[in-house]
Amino acid sequence: MFSKVLIANRGEIALRVARTCRELGIRTVGVYSTADRDPRVLRHFDETVHIGPAQSRRSYQNTPAIIEAALKTDAEAIHPGYGFLSEDADFAEVCDEAGLVFIGPRPAQMSALGDKASARRIMSDAGLPLLPGSVEPSPDLAHASSTAERIGYPVIIKASAGGGGKGMAVVRGPEELEKTFSQAKNVAGSLFGDDRVYLERYLERARHVEVQVLCDTHGNGVHLGTRDCSVQRRHQKLLEEGPAPALPAATAKKMANSSVLAALKVGYVGVCTFEFLVDDQQNHYFMEINTRIQVEHPVTEMISGVDLVREQILVAAGHPLTLTQQDIRLTGVAVECRVNGEDPDRDFVPTAGVLERFDPPGGPFTRVDTHAFTGYVLSPHYDSMVAKVIVWAPDREQALNRMDRALYEFTVDGPGVKTTVPFLRRVLADEEFRKAAHSTGLVDRIQAKKIEEEGK
Amino acid sequence: MFSKVLIANRGEIALRVARTCRELGIRTVGVYSTADRDPRVLRHFDETVHIGPAQSRRSYQNTPAIIEAALKTDAEAIHPGYGFLSEDADFAEVCDEAGLVFIGPRPAQMSALGDKASARRIMSDAGLPLLPGSVEPSPDLAHASSTAERIGYPVIIKASAGGGGKGMAVVRGPEELEKTFSQAKNVAGSLFGDDRVYLERYLERARHVEVQVLCDTHGNGVHLGTRDCSVQRRHQKLLEEGPAPALPAATAKKMANSSVLAALKVGYVGVCTFEFLVDDQQNHYFMEINTRIQVEHPVTEMISGVDLVREQILVAAGHPLTLTQQDIRLTGVAVECRVNGEDPDRDFVPTAGVLERFDPPGGPFTRVDTHAFTGYVLSPHYDSMVAKVIVWAPDREQALNRMDRALYEFTVDGPGVKTTVPFLRRVLADEEFRKAAHSTGLVDRIQAKKIEEEGK
Repeated sequence: MFSKVLIANRGEIALRVARTCRELGIRTVGVYSTADRDPRVLRHFDETVHIGPAQSRRSYQNTPAIIEAALKTDAEAIHPGYGFLSEDADFAEVCDEAGLVFIGPRPAQMSALGDKASARRIMSDAGLPLLPGSVEPSPDLAHASSTAERIGYPVIIKASAGGGGKGMAVVRGPEELEKTFSQAKNVAGSLFGDDRVYLERYLERARHVEVQVLCDTHGNGVHLGTRDCSVQRRHQKLLEEGPAPALPAATAKKMANSSVLAALKVGYVGVCTFEFLVDDQQNHYFMEINTRIQVEHPVTEMISGVDLVREQILVAAGHPLTLTQQDIRLTGVAVECRVNGEDPDRDFVPTAGVLERFDPPGGPFTRVDTHAFTGYVLSPHYDSMVAKVIVWAPDREQALNRMDRALYEFTVDGPGVKTTVPFLRRVLADEEFRKAAHSTGLVDRIQAKKIEEEGK
Repeated sequence: MFSKVLIANRGEIALRVARTCRELGIRTVGVYSTADRDPRVLRHFDETVHIGPAQSRRSYQNTPAIIEAALKTDAEAIHPGYGFLSEDADFAEVCDEAGLVFIGPRPAQMSALGDKASARRIMSDAGLPLLPGSVEPSPDLAHASSTAERIGYPVIIKASAGGGGKGMAVVRGPEELEKTFSQAKNVAGSLFGDDRVYLERYLERARHVEVQVLCDTHGNGVHLGTRDCSVQRRHQKLLEEGPAPALPAATAKKMANSSVLAALKVGYVGVCTFEFLVDDQQNHYFMEINTRIQVEHPVTEMISGVDLVREQILVAAGHPLTLTQQDIRLTGVAVECRVNGEDPDRDFVPTAGVLERFDPPGGPFTRVDTHAFTGYVLSPHYDSMVAKVIVWAPDREQALNRMDRALYEFTVDGPGVKTTVPFLRRVLADEEFRKAAHSTGLVDRIQAKKIEEEGK
């Protein structure tokens, strides 16, 4: 087992990884930007290295500074968390060259599966249903236009190198295509340094369902069930739950089994997530693969009892999976809410400032993952997530009631600071959501309803 | 179902009960003494009523004030938590007379099982093995002396009306009996208003193992496995775990089944705990019954997935148990640590003051039950518990590592404030404890070892 791991991330996920390392007896190296130098956060790591200024390209995405920090501290492995360098095959390659273990898939697997167009090709070959779309990137407007005509409007334009819901744009008719296509290419280029985009049929009433997969270096792979992440605003997940509700068992089983087979086929190592859209006829369509730990991984941990970060580290150290598919028992329902420092009444604009009070919820079957505390300064430099609240209960109704109770308790207060808590509680009270009859359009509908009510 | 419940308690257990009430859609009435009027705690209740000054006899044990508060707010039921009035049959009787549901057993059951001498008689009749002892109270020194000679020294003197480890005294030889006996009677009288005491063989190397039982008004009863509470200081539990380690399955099964049978035999309703001593030959001896929710109930919740307070409330409202014994699946290992505001380096003297920092642990499989927060003033008026930390893992080693990680993270800081965290971490590191080869003498041994090391 590794004796020291560098955690190339910040915020709650850096603490999350540090927690499991400590439980495994592994020393941790935390890295931090100038904006993140609060010792009350850094106390979670055994050693810390300053790697650059607030701007993430010069700190958390600064490959040379991170490699240097790892070599200087004699770390043997790097855990990338999510975001930043976690899906950067070049970074994984550089780790290899420096003799450091990248805790994640091999660079070639990451390239093959992380690139959306390539992943679609591989999954299509493996027999997974795709949404009508281009598979290959559309190099120019003419190609995009003929593709859109072929698959039918509305279409969605996605960045081939994108992820986490970023760089997507819906086109509802041919008159919008030219403008949106060129915008999408520009956004993709600036966000991911790669302006390739592709088109796909856009489903108006779909649910986002994903499968958690885990593979080792010995050819073993398992799934840990499904999660539903349909509560999204502009393709950013706000609330996730598992197992996916209102999904026929046969569909869930098919999605899960074909995901494991596909991962094993490419010799994948580590955790990965297969994302699908499910339409209102319960047809499922493969969308993309995330080759890293997900923000919403605690949902799966709470229904399976498996510490996914622990499995990631064990597998990266060459250990065989300790679990077979039969060992994995999924029980009850877990729900996660992302509490963001955003103002839901002002179009979710990020807010920043000192948290004069930060009292997270507690009690039965309630987990909080956060780097914040009373006195923490919410920085405008990074994403606005303040905390994740995750609850478990024997059934969905109890889990939703428990989450509402937990959010009721959660106090985050400071001058100018707003959170998404009131909005999340509106989601939890929504009748369609309660019946699990919602789709990815839920958030827009709830916002529209609120505006309408306020107008009355 | 009740529409409003009054919670006749304070601190973490009052919040614990309020959480489940909120999840069940039941409105809560919180009561508070003058020392507990912080609105940041009281926000957890839908309504609050001031019931008296700091001194608990005039507030949390003030029956007329509590009944008045319940009637005034139209509460239909009273949850007593633990301590205070929770095992007071007179209080349960007064609730009955006022037309309020006492969430707990019937007064007669409470008297029969809560009184130790009476419980021993009933359990002996039910075939449960008892430690050699008097069963009946010893009215005078002569009776005590002949009883002690008969059962053999060392003996332990216990208050018939006692509980929670209070009012116990070990007598190692006849020369100590007279003084300790009269002291024990005095203590019992002043603590419980009842000076009856009884004698029992004292086991030097025993473990404290208890069984969680739950019964409804329809004649159904189940157990939810065992907990080990051997980590005690002066009969006060500091760390609890479940299931009890190093206990043969056959012994555990016998203890659990006979506990359920005994509870059903007396027609018990609600949750209760059967406490046993297990000697180093794995013989088990019935000790006493607690007829209320226990401080350590979260241990059972984490291995069973059952919300015990929810079951208490449902059963009190007349609902049949929703669980049969076969439905209850115990998984993994849970550990609870009681973080007390005490100085372990100064003989655990209670400390008080403002908590300038209070950052509880978070992350995977980690639960915190607390009423404290940054800025909370730890009062000298009540027991010194600041928080309970409970963790779960698939096996005991992982659970202990996880607890140590959680305690490492836990920051409680303020002028003059000390906690038991460093001591609890010494317990977790102790080799005998790690091997589950410890007994109730563990804490004294660890303290002696520390003093010896410091002397070197």
